[in-house]
Amino acid sequence: MAKAVLTPQAENFPAWYQDVVARAELADNGPARGTMVIRPWGYAIWELMQADMDRRIKATGAQNAAFPMFIPMSFLEKEKQHVEGFSPELAVVTHGGGEELAEPLVVRPTSETVINHYFAKWVQSHRDLPLMINLWNSVVRWEMRPRVFLRTTEFLWQEGHTAHSTYEDAVEETHRMLEVYRRFMEETLAISVVVGEKSPGERFAGADHTFTCEALMRDGKALQMGTSHNLGHNFARAFDIRYLDAGGERRHAATTSWGTSTRMIGGTIMVHGDDHGLCLPPAIAPHQVVVVQLDGDSAGAARRVEAELRGAGVRAHVDARTHTSFGRRSVDWELKGVPVRIELGARELATGEATLVRRDDRSKSTVPLDGAARAATHLLEEVQDALLAQSRTFREQHTHPVTDLDEFARRVGDGGLFLAAWSGTEESERQLGERTGATIRCIVDAAPPAPTCLISGLPAAHTVLIGRAY
Amino acid sequence: MAKAVLTPQAENFPAWYQDVVARAELADNGPARGTMVIRPWGYAIWELMQADMDRRIKATGAQNAAFPMFIPMSFLEKEKQHVEGFSPELAVVTHGGGEELAEPLVVRPTSETVINHYFAKWVQSHRDLPLMINLWNSVVRWEMRPRVFLRTTEFLWQEGHTAHSTYEDAVEETHRMLEVYRRFMEETLAISVVVGEKSPGERFAGADHTFTCEALMRDGKALQMGTSHNLGHNFARAFDIRYLDAGGERRHAATTSWGTSTRMIGGTIMVHGDDHGLCLPPAIAPHQVVVVQLDGDSAGAARRVEAELRGAGVRAHVDARTHTSFGRRSVDWELKGVPVRIELGARELATGEATLVRRDDRSKSTVPLDGAARAATHLLEEVQDALLAQSRTFREQHTHPVTDLDEFARRVGDGGLFLAAWSGTEESERQLGERTGATIRCIVDAAPPAPTCLISGLPAAHTVLIGRAY
Repeated sequence: MAKAVLTPQAENFPAWYQDVVARAELADNGPARGTMVIRPWGYAIWELMQADMDRRIKATGAQNAAFPMFIPMSFLEKEKQHVEGFSPELAVVTHGGGEELAEPLVVRPTSETVINHYFAKWVQSHRDLPLMINLWNSVVRWEMRPRVFLRTTEFLWQEGHTAHSTYEDAVEETHRMLEVYRRFMEETLAISVVVGEKSPGERFAGADHTFTCEALMRDGKALQMGTSHNLGHNFARAFDIRYLDAGGERRHAATTSWGTSTRMIGGTIMVHGDDHGLCLPPAIAPHQVVVVQLDGDSAGAARRVEAELRGAGVRAHVDARTHTSFGRRSVDWELKGVPVRIELGARELATGEATLVRRDDRSKSTVPLDGAARAATHLLEEVQDALLAQSRTFREQHTHPVTDLDEFARRVGDGGLFLAAWSGTEESERQLGERTGATIRCIVDAAPPAPTCLISGLPAAHTVLIGRAY
Repeated sequence: MAKAVLTPQAENFPAWYQDVVARAELADNGPARGTMVIRPWGYAIWELMQADMDRRIKATGAQNAAFPMFIPMSFLEKEKQHVEGFSPELAVVTHGGGEELAEPLVVRPTSETVINHYFAKWVQSHRDLPLMINLWNSVVRWEMRPRVFLRTTEFLWQEGHTAHSTYEDAVEETHRMLEVYRRFMEETLAISVVVGEKSPGERFAGADHTFTCEALMRDGKALQMGTSHNLGHNFARAFDIRYLDAGGERRHAATTSWGTSTRMIGGTIMVHGDDHGLCLPPAIAPHQVVVVQLDGDSAGAARRVEAELRGAGVRAHVDARTHTSFGRRSVDWELKGVPVRIELGARELATGEATLVRRDDRSKSTVPLDGAARAATHLLEEVQDALLAQSRTFREQHTHPVTDLDEFARRVGDGGLFLAAWSGTEESERQLGERTGATIRCIVDAAPPAPTCLISGLPAAHTVLIGRAY
């Protein structure tokens, strides 16, 4: 057997993560600090995420568009909180076409300002609302502690932006998209998430309310997987988005924005991966089934199984590299996280049986050769469900109610999520971070585990999910 | 009838173009000079182009990936001709995260330099070749005379980059992709193009050979629709891309690059559009068939026709805006270029017949209501074919052999393409531009119309296609 090629998770989780990213050929660091090159295997996963998410977004009525990556600095300055929040992270173009620019251009960190500038042009009447736009692009936020997929100076994402007649409509849209994200993460990424509202300290710069999907990684740290913001009238006022209502009165629209990014690839790696590498949910696996052809004699049979799989809508691939050792090939496909392998050689042809290997639990089974494609197809559904169930169980088993700050400070280093009572004050949120390195991941809709705040001892106003996070 | 909303083509073609872009809601100018906002209708067209082109590119064996938008200035400087060609067009990031950068970053004008840097890392052995990568992204080239879709400071495109063992393999790839582009333009965009090699003066900065697809717009000007470059060993030497061949010898790879962009949307507008607006080939029409529901009574019938069309794989849409006048709606769908409309109201329900309207020739026909979906589906094929035939005929009728420079100088202002004999000297290419405002669009594989160069009188080496261009 080929020896382990990855640092074990238990030994050094960050090193394991870097190893998986490199050995599964998902990505490389870019030449400019904090940027990344997404390699074909990583990008194919992203394309599958995109296609699935795109369908869900379009089903809500939003339409795709493209906005410029350059935003005049003056646009950002129109919304005070927004510019304060993003200023430290901006990349600034000062020269273009060989000359210094009269007004510096910002490379978009997010597109609220430029989108809302155009919303103000496009929205005249209540009949123009709701206006629902989604963009697939990349944005730049200068990153001091970059980590591939998780925190990069440039990342790929979708950003949705909507304008509505009433504040209530914006509230509804914010929650609708949060639910789209939650379902995508569970149904497609097989990642169980907690949804809730961000505390004021973690709110999007310029939002009235920010909602989030939080997942738990295998090392016990939390990852914010996607956010949905109710921007209320803040941007509509800053950019003067007004419409004539049915009664002929001019009113400000209410806006929202929501986004998910290539960070979800990082989450998928850290939720499902193990010491053998990546483990992909079938819904986003570029090859769902690899038919490992063991020798020259089995070429025809391998192609027949592949054709049958493709006929059933399965992304199948024949590995015909018979000049490479079987062990090396098995290790490769495990590293790359392919959900199901079918091993097929002269022996299998003789016995009329093929070996099926699951990536998630690495179990093997023997099936009749002429039923192999059907069995593999069925197995894909099982694997998809098993991964979600495993993710949910793991999260539940590592979520603990906590009522004593000293106890929390002792336990937080072991990882996991904690449910605690919180007063809601900014001061207590700051104290929590300083004392424990943990943050409030979100305010959840649950009975508080205690009547008084875990941190301040003041009367509890909320139940919050707390943990250390990426 | 609603009156004309566009400047007629014959009166002022550039004004007509701007009118179509605005009234069909394809795009807006961006806030930073030369940038654009692609609106949902324009972007939906781009998504259809992308999906089709992406399938064709993947069928050649290339895989998608993503590379950073920021490239260190030092990377560009490694290939002398490349940096000379692109320097005047660069946008430069000098500040990031609130600080001045030690090395300025260029916003990619194209990705050869950063891609070939990674190719050098990834390519070790002849077994790693060919390496074929495609990117869908946006690039920035500072534009002094911007025009939406045709020349914009930022544009969306695909850029393919490949590395091969031998120069001959690179030659083959360059031609393979040129042929992929030609077929895409004819089969999908219904635009007849001339393919050929660019003259040295129009070559990509750093290429040995550049090949192009050239189309003829309705105003008689040419448009370069896509290019394929044989980069030979230039970038492989600059970035040290070497591999061990089967005999154990270390050799430089040969590389190519090829690209098509949102400029093709501009070409589609100017090849097929008329005084009534955009005219979309069905293959890239976001709505291929619009069922114009004339009154409340026909809602059910309209939905049934829509369902039947969708069942046949047609992108169908019901226009149920019965509160808006029929004339206004007809003008709107004509402006937006929808290939086929089905008009359906109480009268049609009573007579059992529906009206079909073609966008290209604006002809109407009456068909039995229960065969309307089938007839419309068939009509889509006819329209797609007719548009290509029309484009080919137009190009052929406006392509003239020319042997006398004075005659050419007189005629070039009327537009059209000209076939001429050319000596191949840079001096004559320069003279041509200065004297006539025309450029050599490409060197074509055809018998020269004369033994001596149209411009210099020197012995002719090539037949070239000449014209004024966007």
